[in-house]
Amino acid sequence: MSGMTRGKFITLEGGEGVGKSTNLIFLQDYLKHRRISAVVTREPGGTPLAEKLREVLLAHGSESIAPTTELLLMFAARAQHIRHVIEPALARGEWVLCDRFTDATYAYQGGARHMDCAAIAWLENLVQGSLRPDLTLLLDAPAEIGLARAKGRRSEPDRFETEKRRFFEDVRQAYLRLAALHPERIRLIAADRPLPEVQADLAASLSALLK
Amino acid sequence: MSGMTRGKFITLEGGEGVGKSTNLIFLQDYLKHRRISAVVTREPGGTPLAEKLREVLLAHGSESIAPTTELLLMFAARAQHIRHVIEPALARGEWVLCDRFTDATYAYQGGARHMDCAAIAWLENLVQGSLRPDLTLLLDAPAEIGLARAKGRRSEPDRFETEKRRFFEDVRQAYLRLAALHPERIRLIAADRPLPEVQADLAASLSALLK
Repeated sequence: MSGMTRGKFITLEGGEGVGKSTNLIFLQDYLKHRRISAVVTREPGGTPLAEKLREVLLAHGSESIAPTTELLLMFAARAQHIRHVIEPALARGEWVLCDRFTDATYAYQGGARHMDCAAIAWLENLVQGSLRPDLTLLLDAPAEIGLARAKGRRSEPDRFETEKRRFFEDVRQAYLRLAALHPERIRLIAADRPLPEVQADLAASLSALLK
Repeated sequence: MSGMTRGKFITLEGGEGVGKSTNLIFLQDYLKHRRISAVVTREPGGTPLAEKLREVLLAHGSESIAPTTELLLMFAARAQHIRHVIEPALARGEWVLCDRFTDATYAYQGGARHMDCAAIAWLENLVQGSLRPDLTLLLDAPAEIGLARAKGRRSEPDRFETEKRRFFEDVRQAYLRLAALHPERIRLIAADRPLPEVQADLAASLSALLK
């Protein structure tokens, strides 16, 4: 094991409807064709216990989730995911391709739910130590486009839809700030273009990492 | 509501087999006879969502829980419990009687599982703000006595039992350090005495709070 090269840790980020699922498959195929063994996983989730926490987080029960509860559950699931999936894979020399990671916490819980970013940063250090993605591919599109794509329709927004648009615009702006803060790690990719153009950019980003 | 007196927040703490369940009922009856409306609850748990997290924490699955995951789940459940049960009850003027609270996190995750106490203190402030129990009743007994009582038997310990004894001795020592650190809040009650003596001490502690 001593001579083994550590795998690369790649995360895919972006708001609703920016094409994450389609492009995750593209990235997976890209690595496969280059004979790079990759673990494809997602957050919140990635282990049986963390997937149980995902269910708790996404359930629409009668009991609303306090913002602090949501934040701590995200990092509890992440701690489990890192310990049982991400770190072992990287140590084995495999690559890890993860659908959302801590940038999503900054964007959703920080940017849109207004949790203190200093608290998020503290939890990031507690849970991750020095682990950070080697590359983050951020798919970016205006909130309207993403939401319309996610819904597969366009109609006049009601009050709830308007609030939702504001929420996703906050998420987008938070992601854009992260990209500006971490230009060495985050590759910003305009997702409101034809798919072949988007995927050419994704391929170029991975290719740079392979060198 | 403006003239309403805030309720008192009382927690009951202690290791295994020190008699928490029996004495919780005693405390509940004590308040009832004095016509004090009290919410009796427990941690981890106390809301449907927090009870789901309790199940995750206590389940013996094939996937071990990372210590950081355990710590964050405890505080995630606590945030929910405070927001939906404890704070509303105290604000209504009711008392809250809680079977374990943050001292248990210091004793179990800190003292026995060796999580950094500074991390616990940081999470305590994040989740609780200025909320602290008005009174903590700490039932104390040597780990052997507690474990034997919990098991209802005494036999020669195997390696696992020996490790368990060490674990509960660590829990006990951590609780005793907390009592020394917070003498104004924590009432240390020797639980290896006849029940009437223990309960006389519990009654005296509540009585002092009623004045």
